[in-house]
Amino acid sequence: MTAANTNTVSAQANVASANGKMLRHVVMFKFKETSSPQDIAMVEKAFAGLSKSISLIKSFEWGTNNSPENLNQGLTHCFIGTFSSEKDRDDYLVHPKHVEFTKIAGPHIDKVTVMDFWVK
Amino acid sequence: MTAANTNTVSAQANVASANGKMLRHVVMFKFKETSSPQDIAMVEKAFAGLSKSISLIKSFEWGTNNSPENLNQGLTHCFIGTFSSEKDRDDYLVHPKHVEFTKIAGPHIDKVTVMDFWVK
Repeated sequence: MTAANTNTVSAQANVASANGKMLRHVVMFKFKETSSPQDIAMVEKAFAGLSKSISLIKSFEWGTNNSPENLNQGLTHCFIGTFSSEKDRDDYLVHPKHVEFTKIAGPHIDKVTVMDFWVK
Repeated sequence: MTAANTNTVSAQANVASANGKMLRHVVMFKFKETSSPQDIAMVEKAFAGLSKSISLIKSFEWGTNNSPENLNQGLTHCFIGTFSSEKDRDDYLVHPKHVEFTKIAGPHIDKVTVMDFWVK
C-alpha cells in the first residue's frame, strides 16, 4: 500500500494519486455580516471535518486571508482539498456528508469562488 | 541544510519552512477577451518562471479551472506559491522580477483574486 492509497489526511502532506497527479479544489468564502464568530467557527470546523470523514479527499488545508494586496474581493477564507481524479471530485460533490455541509454553510455564505485544477 | 533551505522548486513538493509553517499565496486570473492564446501562454510561462528565479518561493503550482460547479466567477487560471514567512511574501511582492511580471501580465488581466493564508 502506498501513501496514495491510505486515507491519511494531513494539512501539510500533499498526497498525490498513484500516477502522481493532484487535482486541487480551491474554495473561497466571504461570510455574511449577520453571521457570528461562532457561526463562522462552526462552518470552518464542519468543512475541515469533511476531510476526516470522506476518504476521497487526499489532503486538506485551510486558513484566513492575510494578503496585503487587497485583491481578495471580500473573500476571507480559503480551503484547498486535493483529489486523485475528477471522478473522486465529482463523487465528493454529491457525497451526503458534503451535501449536508453545504446546507449547514449555505445560510452563512455571502460570496463564494471555487476553482479546481490539475497541478501541471 | 534542510529541504526548507534549498531553492528547489517543485510543483508537487510542498516545502515547509524550518518551523513547518507554510504561507500559501493563491492567485486567480481571468484574462481579457482581447488576449490571444499566445498572450495567455506567455503570462503562464512568465508566472511559472518566477518560481525558478526567485528563491523566496518555496514551491509553486498552477493549472486551469475544470470545476463543474460554475462558481469560478469567470476566473480561469489558479496559481499557488508557498512562502516560509510573511517577510518572504512581502519581499516577493516588491521583488524586481515580480514587479516586471505584473507589468507583463497586467495588460492581459480582466479580473484577479488573491488570497494568502497560513496553513493551519
